[in-house]
Amino acid sequence: MSLTIALDLMGGDDAPAIVIDGAALAHKRHADVDFLLFGDEAKVRPHLARHPALAAMPLVHTAEFVAGDAKPSHALRQGRQSSMRLAINAVKEGRAAAAVSAGNTGALMAMAKFVLKTLPGIDRPAIAGPMPAGEKSAIVLDLGANVDCGVEHLVQFAVMGHVFARIVLGLPEPKIGLLNIGTEDLKGNEVIRGAAAMLRASPLNRDFYGFVEGTDVTRGVVDVVVTDGFTGNVALKIAEGTAAMYASFLRQAFRSDWRAKLGYLLARPALSRVRAKLDPRRYNGAMLLGLNGVVVKSHGGTDAVGFGHAIDAAVELVRAGTNDRIIEEMTAVAGRAAGAPAAAVG
Amino acid sequence: MSLTIALDLMGGDDAPAIVIDGAALAHKRHADVDFLLFGDEAKVRPHLARHPALAAMPLVHTAEFVAGDAKPSHALRQGRQSSMRLAINAVKEGRAAAAVSAGNTGALMAMAKFVLKTLPGIDRPAIAGPMPAGEKSAIVLDLGANVDCGVEHLVQFAVMGHVFARIVLGLPEPKIGLLNIGTEDLKGNEVIRGAAAMLRASPLNRDFYGFVEGTDVTRGVVDVVVTDGFTGNVALKIAEGTAAMYASFLRQAFRSDWRAKLGYLLARPALSRVRAKLDPRRYNGAMLLGLNGVVVKSHGGTDAVGFGHAIDAAVELVRAGTNDRIIEEMTAVAGRAAGAPAAAVG
Repeated sequence: MSLTIALDLMGGDDAPAIVIDGAALAHKRHADVDFLLFGDEAKVRPHLARHPALAAMPLVHTAEFVAGDAKPSHALRQGRQSSMRLAINAVKEGRAAAAVSAGNTGALMAMAKFVLKTLPGIDRPAIAGPMPAGEKSAIVLDLGANVDCGVEHLVQFAVMGHVFARIVLGLPEPKIGLLNIGTEDLKGNEVIRGAAAMLRASPLNRDFYGFVEGTDVTRGVVDVVVTDGFTGNVALKIAEGTAAMYASFLRQAFRSDWRAKLGYLLARPALSRVRAKLDPRRYNGAMLLGLNGVVVKSHGGTDAVGFGHAIDAAVELVRAGTNDRIIEEMTAVAGRAAGAPAAAVG
Repeated sequence: MSLTIALDLMGGDDAPAIVIDGAALAHKRHADVDFLLFGDEAKVRPHLARHPALAAMPLVHTAEFVAGDAKPSHALRQGRQSSMRLAINAVKEGRAAAAVSAGNTGALMAMAKFVLKTLPGIDRPAIAGPMPAGEKSAIVLDLGANVDCGVEHLVQFAVMGHVFARIVLGLPEPKIGLLNIGTEDLKGNEVIRGAAAMLRASPLNRDFYGFVEGTDVTRGVVDVVVTDGFTGNVALKIAEGTAAMYASFLRQAFRSDWRAKLGYLLARPALSRVRAKLDPRRYNGAMLLGLNGVVVKSHGGTDAVGFGHAIDAAVELVRAGTNDRIIEEMTAVAGRAAGAPAAAVG
């Protein structure tokens, strides 16, 4: 089934080049996916010229774009003709099945929430993204959209993460963990303990592992990590930073003398597999879950390979009917929590 | 100047062996430091027998100890004769200059707060500890004592971390960062923005860097990272877990084929320097800052080397007069914040 993805060509540190090159990479993988392009014609044409298939796709010109450092509220008021906003509008109007942008996350979330609204049963959309977790990866949410969260928000995040892991990652029984500072029942604050109690009383209890600590996340103890947007954002960036620091120490070590240099040459193929496992581009494509529409945020500093993966994620979310599954599961959880007979989840 | 350190021999996963062996290591470095030992005589004597210098030091027998999984409130009520509590009492009564324990952190904090109280101007003690930060380390607080924090608590943590970095780490102008999910003024919640405003209005402004993100912490942008105990604890454990995951990937890679194995043998000396840089034992010894007395928490899972470093930290805190410096700096900050003429800080 062919589908159309709206692309904000102007978002990201190296836009529009990486967006267009990334779209070309994704297009090779998904020949039946078309793009609806939004950007500044004069700036994007030279890049489109490198990819005849893309150059033939519809381009909506706008000279406006959302600056990387724009305040979300300002972008919402002043950016009505921006490439980002027009791409989101295309989803709202049914001209595209999803929108992908590497631009300002706060502005993207604010616009998407304003234009698309949230799914029934969801109060606040969340940013969900993968983090390396042992030999696999875990989906973590929220990664920064909601700084302060209540019990019901964490429960909604658990539902959205659970659906994402089942449908998009294909895990039949994804384990959900609530990020905490200890695994004992009394750890954390009232919000976290309240969310744990609500999850235990819901049909999600079957896949609810309980509290997890930071070291459990990186060991891959659970598939879905639920947390508020402040903690999730810090966790993501500490993990990124620690991996980068480790890599930098290794580079220094391998340069330190001739033995180490020779050792590096011999071990290089094996080491490049480690690097590939931890490549942040593999973990690109944060999903804005809970919106009445599919919007994917690519990392602003990504390259074309990373942007291509963000498009892949959008295609998967649409094809899997993720939003319908979220509505179903949320209904079951809310029904049980309200004391009503709950539908089976699974 | 000789001084006495009270040791809880019964706290930690491998107590009393690692505590006693660690004390022996520290004693070799600090011949003028005596220990006052608290523990179960029958259990500790066989270990003391390995170290004649320690066997000659005063031992207070108690069969009680705080279990690793005891609730702090329970330990506080029921553990009045525990080795942990008696070690803290010794500080209160002036028989020891500091107490060191590898036991239950929550119980240690609860007991220390109850027995020693807080320093003038400090509402809540914080757990402070080092995290790897580029080529150096940063002191991070709070690491878990205070799950929910207000503006004034974060400001007090900043003062305590600043003094620690100046006095114990010997940094003349330690840069302070407030951990946030972005560096723009509008990021975060009201508490964090309020703390930033208060620090800017205080004499600490000179050394206040502003907001830092997780990736700034690991790059060593600041020397002191201020955050609430929930976020700090998650950050610490995510960093630990990420480093452990990276190390495990490397071990696998170096075992994957003969080229990699040979490469490892050649690069081993250089690689062992990387391992030493990230050795969690080097980052052992969390300080309970803000108490009217010096209490150091060693990691519960540490070995003798790690426990010895925790004792070193206690000795440094006492000799540097850390608590007097905290009182001075807090007075200056509170005075300025209240609109009164502030004393010079520095």
